[in-house]
Amino acid sequence: MEVTQVLRMNGGMGNTSYANNSLVQRKVLALTKPIREEAMTKLYRKMLPKSLVIADLGCSSGPNTFFVVSEVIKTVEKLCRELNHQSPEYQVFLNDLPGNDFSNIFRSLSSFKDRLSHEMVSGVGPCFLFGVPGSFYGRLFPSKSFHFVHASYSLQWLSQVPDGVENNKGNIYMASTSPSNVLKAYYQQFQKDFSFFLECRAKEVVEGGYMVLIFLGRKSDDPSTKEGCLIWELMAKALNDMASMGIIKEGEVDSFNIPQYTPSPSEVERVVVKEGSFSINRVEVSAVNWNAYDDGWNTENSKFSESEVARDGGYNVAKCMRAVAEPLLISHFGESVIEEVFRRYQEILTDRMSKEKTEFINVALSVTRNA
Amino acid sequence: MEVTQVLRMNGGMGNTSYANNSLVQRKVLALTKPIREEAMTKLYRKMLPKSLVIADLGCSSGPNTFFVVSEVIKTVEKLCRELNHQSPEYQVFLNDLPGNDFSNIFRSLSSFKDRLSHEMVSGVGPCFLFGVPGSFYGRLFPSKSFHFVHASYSLQWLSQVPDGVENNKGNIYMASTSPSNVLKAYYQQFQKDFSFFLECRAKEVVEGGYMVLIFLGRKSDDPSTKEGCLIWELMAKALNDMASMGIIKEGEVDSFNIPQYTPSPSEVERVVVKEGSFSINRVEVSAVNWNAYDDGWNTENSKFSESEVARDGGYNVAKCMRAVAEPLLISHFGESVIEEVFRRYQEILTDRMSKEKTEFINVALSVTRNA
Repeated sequence: MEVTQVLRMNGGMGNTSYANNSLVQRKVLALTKPIREEAMTKLYRKMLPKSLVIADLGCSSGPNTFFVVSEVIKTVEKLCRELNHQSPEYQVFLNDLPGNDFSNIFRSLSSFKDRLSHEMVSGVGPCFLFGVPGSFYGRLFPSKSFHFVHASYSLQWLSQVPDGVENNKGNIYMASTSPSNVLKAYYQQFQKDFSFFLECRAKEVVEGGYMVLIFLGRKSDDPSTKEGCLIWELMAKALNDMASMGIIKEGEVDSFNIPQYTPSPSEVERVVVKEGSFSINRVEVSAVNWNAYDDGWNTENSKFSESEVARDGGYNVAKCMRAVAEPLLISHFGESVIEEVFRRYQEILTDRMSKEKTEFINVALSVTRNA
Repeated sequence: MEVTQVLRMNGGMGNTSYANNSLVQRKVLALTKPIREEAMTKLYRKMLPKSLVIADLGCSSGPNTFFVVSEVIKTVEKLCRELNHQSPEYQVFLNDLPGNDFSNIFRSLSSFKDRLSHEMVSGVGPCFLFGVPGSFYGRLFPSKSFHFVHASYSLQWLSQVPDGVENNKGNIYMASTSPSNVLKAYYQQFQKDFSFFLECRAKEVVEGGYMVLIFLGRKSDDPSTKEGCLIWELMAKALNDMASMGIIKEGEVDSFNIPQYTPSPSEVERVVVKEGSFSINRVEVSAVNWNAYDDGWNTENSKFSESEVARDGGYNVAKCMRAVAEPLLISHFGESVIEEVFRRYQEILTDRMSKEKTEFINVALSVTRNA
């Protein structure tokens, strides 16, 4: 499996699209707003750029894509008012893998700009937006060209399924029953990928520039705890059930592994320190319920209908995970079994969520490019 | 009709796609290679940029999209070898309207890069590619950021259908039977649009930077000669025939006008001189047959099959025009009549092309940004 070819969020604006099933990711952006505000404020005050160049890596498509861009611009405009400065020019680079639904982003660009001008009554600097297709595990931008780089819920995706995990039978990710070599292989792949990511960005970010990186992660230093693994263990259960009934082959499940690693804060920090190009300003851990609707989120601010909110948690979580993982599953198991996988997954999720509190853990990191 | 919303070449890779029906446009690129080579050579020798920033405006999608980029990079690499310089970094910005099939471009990016590395055995500088959605009748890029801007067969498209052409009845473009106010309105719209285009680019191109702009145009100073108009007059005939049979409404044809202007060399020059930001290096006129296959074009170098080459000219030209004009026609007449329009258009084209030589006229312009 070539991850860059098959990994993408579901495109379009339909029922199973990422655009319509990414409230969890939006809540993570809302939770981590202070860390971005702090970074942007320090950056602006220190550099006073006339042309501010920012990138969002793993931008996907839908409302979340413009959420961060819009927030960053508002932060800077507010500072400009306070300091009585002229607004800078904004250069915004939205990156994702080539299979991402860039057309969807580009078609909603004019409404984003209209909304921004409408909200910023005191005016906003000219904003130039560009799409950047490619893997962030490689160079994307010219040397020393960026002030601020952001990535949320994208860096937990690895560049490949780790080598040497053939014996991870019955599992599709790290799990409590995974052999120790599997856990080690996953960790090593994460270290290699994240370190290379930092090397590439170190060439692209100007001295004193900032990065805010938010991982789907875990608190514990044990990589096989439920925090990071349960969501995939329950999907493995759905797949194993289907294999035991002969709907899919057992060998297909055995050979399927998710190219993801949900790191702990200390694992993230260790790679940054070892790579050496960036200094850590802040590491923060937060949590968000699997079911994004279950804690009084104001649906008026979301694109989701009341009827969806009223559905059970399993329904919402299965849809969220489908938007994220469907193309990956289709590439391995084929399209015909997908409905059944997610029907079963939803049942399993509903059952489990009735019994315990289930949360995604976010590890947010703010770093500065060393001189 | 909002041109930015409805104008686009047919997307995808199918039978009616622009990607598979753009041999005419490719031949125009081949014909105008010397003018780009001259511009790039002068530019490189004068500026010796370490990071060369280029844009193709109206890039569309398909093989032509990477044709110019690839050619420009090869020209620069050859110069670097001659001068014993290190290769520069390339920043390539591909622009088109938001409805363009950018996904298609992005998906073929890795094969473009592979091909380029394969062809350039002596190596090639790092190449960063970006998609830029938006109308070039407006700012697209930050100030003083570009060395070289290219546009081929895109600037004849106007930003809107000219105001005041309601009495252009029975025609869908300027025609020998168009009232004089219609010809005047079209010319004024061209002047306004092209002048604003130059104003915008003047802000974006560095001093001494180059633009090569290739218009679908005409030789004659009479805007209603066949050179620029016949291709649309024959389409109008197909539509008028359908209106007389009651398949579409006469009023629909009367209210439909193509947002295009095919300028003469002197009209192009006049706007450049009057706007004042750029100096003209060269204006060249060339011609290409409507039927791109009829003059010994080597099909081994194209993606087209022998069976298509053997078809009559009307078939090829109708397909070429369909790839270009279908979204525009659908937005006005609806999808249901499209097959019939192009069936009739093909018949009319075949008949006419058997009787006379039919050519598109290209007006190619090279300019430098004044200090």
